Amino acid sequence: MRTPAPAAPGAAEALRTLLDGLEVGPLGEEIQATIAELYPLCRSITGDGLRASLKVLQRTAPLTLHEVPTGTPVLDWVVPREWNLRRARLWAPDGAVLADTDVSNLHVLNYSVPFTGSVSLDELQPHLHSLPEAPELIPYRTSYYKDAWGFCLPHAVRQQLRPGPYRVEIDTTLQDGALSYGELLVPGLQQAEVLVSTHCCHPSLANDNCAGMAMCAVLARMLLGLRLRYSYRFVFVPGTIGAITWLARNGSTAQRIAHGLVAACVGDRGRLTYKRSRRGTAEVDRAAVHVLQHAGADYEVRDFTPYGYDERQYCSPGFNLAVGSLTRTPYGEYPEYHTSADNLSLVRPASVVDTLRRYLEVFEVLEGNRTYQNLSPRGEPQLGKRGLYGALGGQSHAQARQMAMLWVLNQSDGTASLLDIAERAKLPFPQIRWAAGALEAAGLLAEVSA
Amino acid sequence: MRTPAPAAPGAAEALRTLLDGLEVGPLGEEIQATIAELYPLCRSITGDGLRASLKVLQRTAPLTLHEVPTGTPVLDWVVPREWNLRRARLWAPDGAVLADTDVSNLHVLNYSVPFTGSVSLDELQPHLHSLPEAPELIPYRTSYYKDAWGFCLPHAVRQQLRPGPYRVEIDTTLQDGALSYGELLVPGLQQAEVLVSTHCCHPSLANDNCAGMAMCAVLARMLLGLRLRYSYRFVFVPGTIGAITWLARNGSTAQRIAHGLVAACVGDRGRLTYKRSRRGTAEVDRAAVHVLQHAGADYEVRDFTPYGYDERQYCSPGFNLAVGSLTRTPYGEYPEYHTSADNLSLVRPASVVDTLRRYLEVFEVLEGNRTYQNLSPRGEPQLGKRGLYGALGGQSHAQARQMAMLWVLNQSDGTASLLDIAERAKLPFPQIRWAAGALEAAGLLAEVSA
Amino acid sequence: MRTPAPAAPGAAEALRTLLDGLEVGPLGEEIQATIAELYPLCRSITGDGLRASLKVLQRTAPLTLHEVPTGTPVLDWVVPREWNLRRARLWAPDGAVLADTDVSNLHVLNYSVPFTGSVSLDELQPHLHSLPEAPELIPYRTSYYKDAWGFCLPHAVRQQLRPGPYRVEIDTTLQDGALSYGELLVPGLQQAEVLVSTHCCHPSLANDNCAGMAMCAVLARMLLGLRLRYSYRFVFVPGTIGAITWLARNGSTAQRIAHGLVAACVGDRGRLTYKRSRRGTAEVDRAAVHVLQHAGADYEVRDFTPYGYDERQYCSPGFNLAVGSLTRTPYGEYPEYHTSADNLSLVRPASVVDTLRRYLEVFEVLEGNRTYQNLSPRGEPQLGKRGLYGALGGQSHAQARQMAMLWVLNQSDGTASLLDIAERAKLPFPQIRWAAGALEAAGLLAEVSA
Repeated sequence: MRTPAPAAPGAAEALRTLLDGLEVGPLGEEIQATIAELYPLCRSITGDGLRASLKVLQRTAPLTLHEVPTGTPVLDWVVPREWNLRRARLWAPDGAVLADTDVSNLHVLNYSVPFTGSVSLDELQPHLHSLPEAPELIPYRTSYYKDAWGFCLPHAVRQQLRPGPYRVEIDTTLQDGALSYGELLVPGLQQAEVLVSTHCCHPSLANDNCAGMAMCAVLARMLLGLRLRYSYRFVFVPGTIGAITWLARNGSTAQRIAHGLVAACVGDRGRLTYKRSRRGTAEVDRAAVHVLQHAGADYEVRDFTPYGYDERQYCSPGFNLAVGSLTRTPYGEYPEYHTSADNLSLVRPASVVDTLRRYLEVFEVLEGNRTYQNLSPRGEPQLGKRGLYGALGGQSHAQARQMAMLWVLNQSDGTASLLDIAERAKLPFPQIRWAAGALEAAGLLAEVSA
Repeated sequence: MRTPAPAAPGAAEALRTLLDGLEVGPLGEEIQATIAELYPLCRSITGDGLRASLKVLQRTAPLTLHEVPTGTPVLDWVVPREWNLRRARLWAPDGAVLADTDVSNLHVLNYSVPFTGSVSLDELQPHLHSLPEAPELIPYRTSYYKDAWGFCLPHAVRQQLRPGPYRVEIDTTLQDGALSYGELLVPGLQQAEVLVSTHCCHPSLANDNCAGMAMCAVLARMLLGLRLRYSYRFVFVPGTIGAITWLARNGSTAQRIAHGLVAACVGDRGRLTYKRSRRGTAEVDRAAVHVLQHAGADYEVRDFTPYGYDERQYCSPGFNLAVGSLTRTPYGEYPEYHTSADNLSLVRPASVVDTLRRYLEVFEVLEGNRTYQNLSPRGEPQLGKRGLYGALGGQSHAQARQMAMLWVLNQSDGTASLLDIAERAKLPFPQIRWAAGALEAAGLLAEVSA
Repeated sequence: MRTPAPAAPGAAEALRTLLDGLEVGPLGEEIQATIAELYPLCRSITGDGLRASLKVLQRTAPLTLHEVPTGTPVLDWVVPREWNLRRARLWAPDGAVLADTDVSNLHVLNYSVPFTGSVSLDELQPHLHSLPEAPELIPYRTSYYKDAWGFCLPHAVRQQLRPGPYRVEIDTTLQDGALSYGELLVPGLQQAEVLVSTHCCHPSLANDNCAGMAMCAVLARMLLGLRLRYSYRFVFVPGTIGAITWLARNGSTAQRIAHGLVAACVGDRGRLTYKRSRRGTAEVDRAAVHVLQHAGADYEVRDFTPYGYDERQYCSPGFNLAVGSLTRTPYGEYPEYHTSADNLSLVRPASVVDTLRRYLEVFEVLEGNRTYQNLSPRGEPQLGKRGLYGALGGQSHAQARQMAMLWVLNQSDGTASLLDIAERAKLPFPQIRWAAGALEAAGLLAEVSA
């Protein structure tokens, strides 16, 4: 029996205490306020909107801001020029304002090059983006890697347009600067890390992903006060290029990532959805599925696909990290996705807090998932003489605890982890974890190295 | 090709002959009579009722009685004091007899300490046990490891009780003595053993487990006349402490147990239920599931759980024996369970004989499950020139036999056992076994060492 | 990274081109004509009808005819005497012709010994074969290995028979000769072979198996013009004894068979059915199942059984070749099976061409199933700068291609084959294959040795 790694024995219990006390109330209000503050900022994959957003989050948790200069090679990519928007407007021939980023920053094609001029309707049309199937909404469109300018507007407005001339003023800059991202390490007893990654490049889209940014910052703050087994690394990055930049600069850190989750779309009314890592049955996958199975609500589990959020990068074959994604309704599957309808009214504080609860429960499993050896493995040990029968109170509660103890004793042959046991027993992890603690205290169980 | 272990080539066939001739008739009557004789005895985990019961069974099969003294350490436990009941009675204030173990031995809390005196109703109540949800029935309750006295009675009676005084006479003894159990080894050609274990500590409960005791004794007697491959060990033990005592005293024997079944609740009208061993897919698990699949009646297969009967002990991680449990309705799942309604009318001789048939069929699989090598493995051998086509009579019977022969030839590459083949072919084991015999006789097949 | 085997890089693409151009039209007419020409010939497991049939097929593809003399030992069997039929007739007492092989060659028990004489009805009856359940149809019956004579006739006719005498003239010969079979090797870059085997011993049965013979000859001709990775071996053999004869004479060739399919019953209206090889999950099994999953029509996949067509021989344990069987309605499962109703009207050219298409698609998978290494495995490579985004046209087509590229990049870690990837991505193999080609051309992917 080798010496187990540092155990942080109270970590799972501390998380359980935190979870048992978790309420939407003031926490939900705080998250809602953060989302509301983030929402109007004009984020992109670079620029001042992104920087300002990270600084908003610094008021919740002490993230470090990193700046990576334009032109820096990052894996197969290069950090692009920095984009900033002052204002973009489009006027109709009659002088009416058709689009104004002071009203909604979705109106401008994100990463539009600067342009000022007057164009005919025919010239204008290729620069317009709208949604015939949702004619009242402004779509969200980007052109990061191809120089272009454009406006996004309701299709109903677009259909009313008469022949020109149209006045265009796109007051943006696209020049050497930097890509910004935020990072926070919550140190634990072990060097092995749990990664939580969220994208923060979308402008005024509340669920995708102001809610994710706010939730991750609160999560980080909650963990800061605990004595944890794993170290937890929170990264707030622009999608794709940000994750690639982080991976390019943190090759050796990436090797320490034992488990990870990508957070996004955490605040809509939809059910929780877990997307497995590329590995499929990594510990984080099993922990997340287990948590959802016992969460008492509808949920969905999906296999990995190489599309979605930054799990695409973390799960690329050269890294193949055990990183899944825990969201509510996945990208592209709610009608408000990538439109002006993904606004503050779409996000419910109760949903964000519910998602946050499941993240904490996954951490509870990861923290508490140890492997034990039954020290009295021949026959059942006599629990009664150790007060492990009598100590139990009311019937069904007691029976549940007794079953959990019998399962832990029966399965703890030095190879089955507590998560293995919880899965086989079909019992919630905290019960199994409690039973292991009680049995260990009674001298019937000893932890072994994994 | 190593030399196979002693084969007892006729064992599976002998069991098949026995099975083909099996009828409920006189056998059912004999079993019914044994159950009726066992039923009124006041069994417990020790004492004269247990001894007397084992002696009843000795008239069916020559089991050896073992006596293990009080105080003997057995694994994590200690053999308790021996309990004996002369009589226990409870009188109402008006002199009416409320409970009398001469009427039903369930009336006394099993393992009650002696007590004589007069108590008020308030003093009496904590010593009473009844079932509000089944107010006409007497429950079965025990207090083996905590000194206590008590009565079990119908809730309807309990609800009529007026303020005291109540006369209590519990004439029991609880003193140094011994724990008794019965054991019978039916020797086979191999030292490897098949364990059949049944508990015999319950007082007047017919299905749980007078029926199991009677069935196991008959099973043992049936096997005694056969030339078997495996040795069969029948143990009749008080639940938990008896199995633990047997394991404590038979550590090296336990290592020879290749397969095992725990028998209980074998006589109710419910469907057959197989509970897998902790290993889950041991040969006995596969054999039992196969037998039930082809038994032509509804059945259920369950995964192992560390609760139930003495499979809990045999499947503790320090032993981890391949022991499952074949019952009808499992413990706790029929309404009469552990009440006075588990009486002689609950047990049907036809059900006991049907359960016994399935035990014999499992043994038939274990006995006959050999591995063969096709000696003409390139292409199909020409069966016709060996009389294996022409010898076949009527169409569908003949086709079934032909398919069985083709399956055995096709799969017998020296690694697939006959049970493997039966599973893959979805054919009953006896057909596959017959085909192997016919092909072996024709020189087309040779047994290999497992 | 070892050097991959010769790749025939264009083979899968050439097959795709061929498939995209495949139409029923003239091809269906040609197949129908061949079937019509084969249908009236009186085939058996030896003899001139078999020879003539192979010669018909030589007009489609240049198969070689082999003749194996009577008495040649072949595995566990011996090549039987050669059987030839001139004519067989049965006359009623009133001189009416009851059976005449010039009308249907099914009328004679196949392999009947010669017999001329007059018999009573009682003497005749054991020599008659009919179908009470289908009284208008002539059954197909054989007696290859037991000397016998007989007639097959509609049960309705048989029921009218009055007491004799009946005139019998069976003008057959059964004497030393040879067993004939046809064979064609389409050489590819590799010695590893794909086997396509079909039986050609059934007389006037159109679906079973004139259709299979015709389809295989066309398949062979189609492959002859292509530059292929695998060598393709087509064998046209009498059932059982023919396959056994081929295996007996081609032991070392058999070892080169990497994949194989047995073709039969390819022209009825039923859905496609794939029967797995004995191995169960061989590459050909996975390829065939994948093709059927994406064929857009109902289909069935079955596990291997040691009954059916010559997969029985190829999958005998001494060979255990990766040979499955791709048919439409399997043997014995359509009402016309082995009766005079399996005639030309049962076979639809469109069904034969559809079956042929699936064979070609299986070959497409086998030819194109390579394993690659992502050369930019850390994060996603930037597809846009390589024109792999922009080059894409209309939306849904482009998205499908993009998903295929992302899957190939994500999974190509040097161990996952393109078929592995197609299965995991649930995308059709040609899309995955196209994506691999595009990525390889862009320098993002390199083939590795399997």
